[in-house]
Amino acid sequence: MEQLIAPEGLANVVVADTEIGDVRGDEGFYHYREHSAVDLARTRSFEDVWYLFVHGELPGPADLDDFRAATTALRDIPDELTGLLRTAALLGDDRDTLAGLRTVLSAAGPAAHAGPLWDADPDTIRHDTMRVAALTPTVLAALHRIRVGEEPIAPDPALSVAANWLYQVTGRRPAPEHVRAVEQYLIATVDHGFNASTFTARVIASTGADVYAAVCGALGAFSGPLHGGAPDRALDSLDEIARHGDATAWAREQVAARRRIMGFGHAVYRTVDPRSELLRDIAVDLGGPTVDAAVDVERRVVEVLREAHPDQPRYANVEFYAGVVMDACGIPRSMFTPTFAVSRVVGWCANIAEQARSRKIIRPRARYIGPAPTPSAGS
Amino acid sequence: MEQLIAPEGLANVVVADTEIGDVRGDEGFYHYREHSAVDLARTRSFEDVWYLFVHGELPGPADLDDFRAATTALRDIPDELTGLLRTAALLGDDRDTLAGLRTVLSAAGPAAHAGPLWDADPDTIRHDTMRVAALTPTVLAALHRIRVGEEPIAPDPALSVAANWLYQVTGRRPAPEHVRAVEQYLIATVDHGFNASTFTARVIASTGADVYAAVCGALGAFSGPLHGGAPDRALDSLDEIARHGDATAWAREQVAARRRIMGFGHAVYRTVDPRSELLRDIAVDLGGPTVDAAVDVERRVVEVLREAHPDQPRYANVEFYAGVVMDACGIPRSMFTPTFAVSRVVGWCANIAEQARSRKIIRPRARYIGPAPTPSAGS
Repeated sequence: MEQLIAPEGLANVVVADTEIGDVRGDEGFYHYREHSAVDLARTRSFEDVWYLFVHGELPGPADLDDFRAATTALRDIPDELTGLLRTAALLGDDRDTLAGLRTVLSAAGPAAHAGPLWDADPDTIRHDTMRVAALTPTVLAALHRIRVGEEPIAPDPALSVAANWLYQVTGRRPAPEHVRAVEQYLIATVDHGFNASTFTARVIASTGADVYAAVCGALGAFSGPLHGGAPDRALDSLDEIARHGDATAWAREQVAARRRIMGFGHAVYRTVDPRSELLRDIAVDLGGPTVDAAVDVERRVVEVLREAHPDQPRYANVEFYAGVVMDACGIPRSMFTPTFAVSRVVGWCANIAEQARSRKIIRPRARYIGPAPTPSAGS
Repeated sequence: MEQLIAPEGLANVVVADTEIGDVRGDEGFYHYREHSAVDLARTRSFEDVWYLFVHGELPGPADLDDFRAATTALRDIPDELTGLLRTAALLGDDRDTLAGLRTVLSAAGPAAHAGPLWDADPDTIRHDTMRVAALTPTVLAALHRIRVGEEPIAPDPALSVAANWLYQVTGRRPAPEHVRAVEQYLIATVDHGFNASTFTARVIASTGADVYAAVCGALGAFSGPLHGGAPDRALDSLDEIARHGDATAWAREQVAARRRIMGFGHAVYRTVDPRSELLRDIAVDLGGPTVDAAVDVERRVVEVLREAHPDQPRYANVEFYAGVVMDACGIPRSMFTPTFAVSRVVGWCANIAEQARSRKIIRPRARYIGPAPTPSAGS
């Protein structure tokens, strides 16, 4: 069979068909199944959208009640993993919360006797993916609480995913406007094309390995600095600008020094990032001095970037307002990226289930470019 | 930029350049750098070959002494991970030893404050990869010992990787011929093209994530039933044939029922698998009734497969004699695939280090084939 030499990094190479969703970079539009993701974020609950990723369609009222009951029951951390979780929480530093989640989920697979995707029926796969996604926020919040010297808080079955997340992280009953803001952020970030973590999950799933194995791999890719999606970095930039005092001058300095400005520009969007617009609206509704400053900084930085690159305008991306929104809702900065993982794990799981149906291993080739080998003495 | 539609599973798609090695399926030949892998297995130590993967060339005597000292010092399990290891050892069943390794290595990253590959210097990457590969056999052997109710055995700095592996798994000082047989198996299985686990390691490394993240992902792909390389399955077939009594009749029954015969046929080799020939020689040198039976079964099964598929002859693959050799050396069947991981982790690590040098994220695309989305109400 003929070899095909792919461009480096597989840029623009289609490696799978999907019914999960798509990103239209030129239009500034992305969707989950046939629904605009931004519309879903504006009008639906996170549970509605989670159901959509699990079942392929939005739920009716009775479906949703059943789904809430089923997923709420899967939130609790198994007793046999609590000691391991406490150890994992205290390794490394507060940037290692996602590594802690990886350790706990890695152990949760064997603890649940999770079987390979290869010979699993669709109901088992669905259950395993719901379990991993339900467990993720509970584990992340517990890791955070232990690291800061507090006791983990048991999930409250009466609370939605978003409300329970805020409750378990902060230890306080959250305000309804904070719950809704975080819920919209979660909905908007469930899935976004074939990023490296989603692709990693699919490569592992293609071997027939179990859901936990695939999610552990995805978490590894997610932790890479080139993966993107670290909302804390953009907020760090806002702090730097506040210390500097003049956003326009600061942005000009970055451009002159050819430093990348975190929170601006995107690999796929050639126009405004629709997630950024949604999150700006949410931030403005929440209000406060950080939000006012962010709106001003966004305007000034986009102006400077337009002067510098008139043919390639760059806009605020999902990171820019994500950090502002989470900060306004009382989420500590070290938990911004873990909050992103709470939603993205739902997207990984849908991709894992879809990949399992293709039953074909992903196994590319490399081209050897080293010195020619000596033939074997024995052959 | 134009989209390129790749064949399903990226079959025959070249996704990277490599200087690590290559597999020539038509010739029945594979090599590490410019050296025949089978020649290396026949003439070199595992440490020589590990050095080759780390440094790109074979060591001189002084280099090798330094390398042995450096890697021996990296074998010990950090104290802060021993409790977590004990928990991981008792989760699931004896097929979950690799999942236990994944859990311990996932925790070992933060424990070692491993930094991202993205801004690491080559010496740090080298050290981290040597640490992961040195830790792997110690962790696997400890997981096994705890699971079977024995105490883990501390590594003996006087022993080579192969000898120490047998010592730590079995609890007995190994016979020299067993050490050499296992060492040759380890050398022969360090690397073998862009299989799914190696590719997974490279995708994760391409995000700039740390070495531990990439190896955890590779271990997930390695655990998939379609990944191949489960030497225990072929030995299970030998047991089945022994119970049946007639290898030829048994093989004909499998062919008639269109069941795959484990240990025969390979995705890449169109001729004899060179690893199988090497391992047959090793097995015959070791001798014994299982070896005699295996040689007889191989001959009969290949005959039946040639009758059934005269245009596509199938030969014994690496799995077939690997299990026979490990069994003859006293390795319990549940530790066959973990033994494979002891060598393959060295290959993953070399691929991770090579990928880190390319500094380009692997991020392909998917093609959306679901119903057309409704445009966003707000846009």
